Amino acid sequence: MTTSDIRVDADRLWRSLGELGDVGAYSDEDTGLHGVRRLALTDADVAGRQLVTGWMRAAGLTVTTDRIGNIYARRDGHDNTLAPVMVGSHIDTVATAGRFDGCLGVLGGLEVVRTLNDHGIATERPIEVAVFTEEEGVRFGTDMLGSAVAAGRIDLAGARQRTDPDGVSVGAELDRHGLVGEVAVPIRAPFAYLECHIEQGPILAAGDTRIGVVQGVQAITWLELQITGRAAHAGATPHHLRRNAGLAAALITVRLNEMVESGEYGAMLATVGRQVNYPNLINIVPESTLITIDLRNPDGGAMKRAQTDLAAYIAEVEQAAGVTITARTTAETPPVVFAEQMRDLVEKHAANLGMSSAPITSGAGHDAGEIAALCPAGMIFVPGLYDGISHNPREYSTPEACADGIDVLLHAVFELAGVASH
Amino acid sequence: MTTSDIRVDADRLWRSLGELGDVGAYSDEDTGLHGVRRLALTDADVAGRQLVTGWMRAAGLTVTTDRIGNIYARRDGHDNTLAPVMVGSHIDTVATAGRFDGCLGVLGGLEVVRTLNDHGIATERPIEVAVFTEEEGVRFGTDMLGSAVAAGRIDLAGARQRTDPDGVSVGAELDRHGLVGEVAVPIRAPFAYLECHIEQGPILAAGDTRIGVVQGVQAITWLELQITGRAAHAGATPHHLRRNAGLAAALITVRLNEMVESGEYGAMLATVGRQVNYPNLINIVPESTLITIDLRNPDGGAMKRAQTDLAAYIAEVEQAAGVTITARTTAETPPVVFAEQMRDLVEKHAANLGMSSAPITSGAGHDAGEIAALCPAGMIFVPGLYDGISHNPREYSTPEACADGIDVLLHAVFELAGVASH
Repeated sequence: MTTSDIRVDADRLWRSLGELGDVGAYSDEDTGLHGVRRLALTDADVAGRQLVTGWMRAAGLTVTTDRIGNIYARRDGHDNTLAPVMVGSHIDTVATAGRFDGCLGVLGGLEVVRTLNDHGIATERPIEVAVFTEEEGVRFGTDMLGSAVAAGRIDLAGARQRTDPDGVSVGAELDRHGLVGEVAVPIRAPFAYLECHIEQGPILAAGDTRIGVVQGVQAITWLELQITGRAAHAGATPHHLRRNAGLAAALITVRLNEMVESGEYGAMLATVGRQVNYPNLINIVPESTLITIDLRNPDGGAMKRAQTDLAAYIAEVEQAAGVTITARTTAETPPVVFAEQMRDLVEKHAANLGMSSAPITSGAGHDAGEIAALCPAGMIFVPGLYDGISHNPREYSTPEACADGIDVLLHAVFELAGVASH
Repeated sequence: MTTSDIRVDADRLWRSLGELGDVGAYSDEDTGLHGVRRLALTDADVAGRQLVTGWMRAAGLTVTTDRIGNIYARRDGHDNTLAPVMVGSHIDTVATAGRFDGCLGVLGGLEVVRTLNDHGIATERPIEVAVFTEEEGVRFGTDMLGSAVAAGRIDLAGARQRTDPDGVSVGAELDRHGLVGEVAVPIRAPFAYLECHIEQGPILAAGDTRIGVVQGVQAITWLELQITGRAAHAGATPHHLRRNAGLAAALITVRLNEMVESGEYGAMLATVGRQVNYPNLINIVPESTLITIDLRNPDGGAMKRAQTDLAAYIAEVEQAAGVTITARTTAETPPVVFAEQMRDLVEKHAANLGMSSAPITSGAGHDAGEIAALCPAGMIFVPGLYDGISHNPREYSTPEACADGIDVLLHAVFELAGVASH
């Protein structure tokens, strides 16, 4: 048997995804399904980390942790002075998640190592399976927090000071759970980084394509708008005297939708996910309203234009609604174009394995977009069902699709790390 | 001294307003002022009731309570077979209240009785000072709940079953606090009902008018819209596949504002005060959004047209945004026109007392609008400062304005109840 005939154990990979998906499981009222709720640095997340690092140790890996709680599970190479090939992703989730987002990249990396072990394969370079902290950003407000600290875009002190809606800091949670490790940040550059992930969109399934060769990650900007008006009686305050914070929020939400639909900002996406009115009572004009805005764009220039035009509109709304609006940028990442050799690598091994592939741009942010600052990085996408719905318990990729992606990852790792003995 | 020379004790009235305003007081961050938070049937509301009924008993009144916790404090007349003259209002408040809304009517009624006592005046008819339960409707979702039960518009069993956002019912709270009294509902019709209240709007102050002769109360409709879309990843879900509940809420909020500004629905007011997104996270398209709509209109026909047109627009939004919307009417009161003799009575006594007056329509709902179903009812408005701002700690009427309203109330009571001996 040559290495070209080797495939990962699809059943073992699937069972691991299932077992990890049981950690932080909840019963979703709306879908009637079991979802996953494992927000970063919660007890559920820590339980997930313990399960995964247990598996890593059982596979003979040496587990270390860096200052922000990122996990690196190392399999020695023939020459340990060489920079490692890194694979991985994250296991933290949103509040209404499925079992695949992030977990496929981590457990797929583990499956690659298990497969190497099964076949007694040694590699020239060490291999590290990485698990990055708070990729989702839903708890502490900045996505890719762990990988951004690892790559040096966000400094450790600032990251530790970030707080969740209850005022609990990243630093306090890392300390409470004993997750601060000895690996310094930014980390030393790996030789290359490769991440397998579900697409989280409908494109691959629509084209009956098995492997997405990810070209890059679109730019992401997160804004938090604090709108301040004046509380007033809903029945006795004439319309012209109102300073209605909730109306201002609605105007901005509708305008963002018009901007997307205008096509003037390319493939822009805009989402107002969070809104909190105060005092939030039926017969009081909202005194203050907080909204969040999530902007995505594969075109960095179009992103900038959208932000400029949005700021101008916000100033108009301040005048029209008699409110004041404070905008804060809570996350901002430029578009990332992955290294050509990594894109070629994914495309080649998909072809070698007889799988259809297509170039695709990632709609979501990913750890690979951060690690790309340190070394050549790339991503492998696999399709999901139901229009690729994600961040929802209905998120689903088949066992076959998951194994496809990890088989490509395995063979890319063979090439990147070099097979020393078999 | 004839009765025409008698005036209420403005200082005593003001002190009582201040003392009651200290019950449930909170420090308001935004205004830097002390506000009042005494939601219906909370411990703070019960503390307020105890303070007021203590004062009532000290003034020689007999305090009884009905099945929904409305308080009636009776001063016997010369002929106790005659139906009583009722004055009153409410002492429950919104979450961000001032000291005047409702309390002026209750403590003004008490001040009328205290003034009668001071001057040894007996009346032909009994006088009752009423305190109605949950006028604001912010805790249990229907305003004028107590007076509507007293007047028979809402049945007792349904009222008791209403719940607050935590699922606590009116009935459970009435039982817990021992507020269920022996007076049956609907109550026996009073001879007449008169309520003094702050205007809660800018009109009287703008015209330098001391007394508003209230012509009636505008129609009120409260709607609760449950909008159901689909949670989806904010970065990877193409725009055309979104079912965005938050966007639907924003479209409806903006349309309501356009309807108000169009002038096509008369003096319509519309407020979306409450909005709750789920899962309410920055990078998830809202799966569901709840909004409340508060509609007011002095013209019942225009109110109906607005509701019909809004329902049509909601159906459009369901199509456009790919969501389903369930609308529930949580309160609906028709416009009320007060009895002509009550309006004339208020106007006459304002003139007798040398006070300027003007006809005015109430922008807010009031207990008088409910009791008008039982007997001739009327209202006296007094101006407030700061555009009559209300439901806000800045709510303020001067000691002089408060005494003006209660002096008119006193002299109207003289006429309605008949002075038996002095």
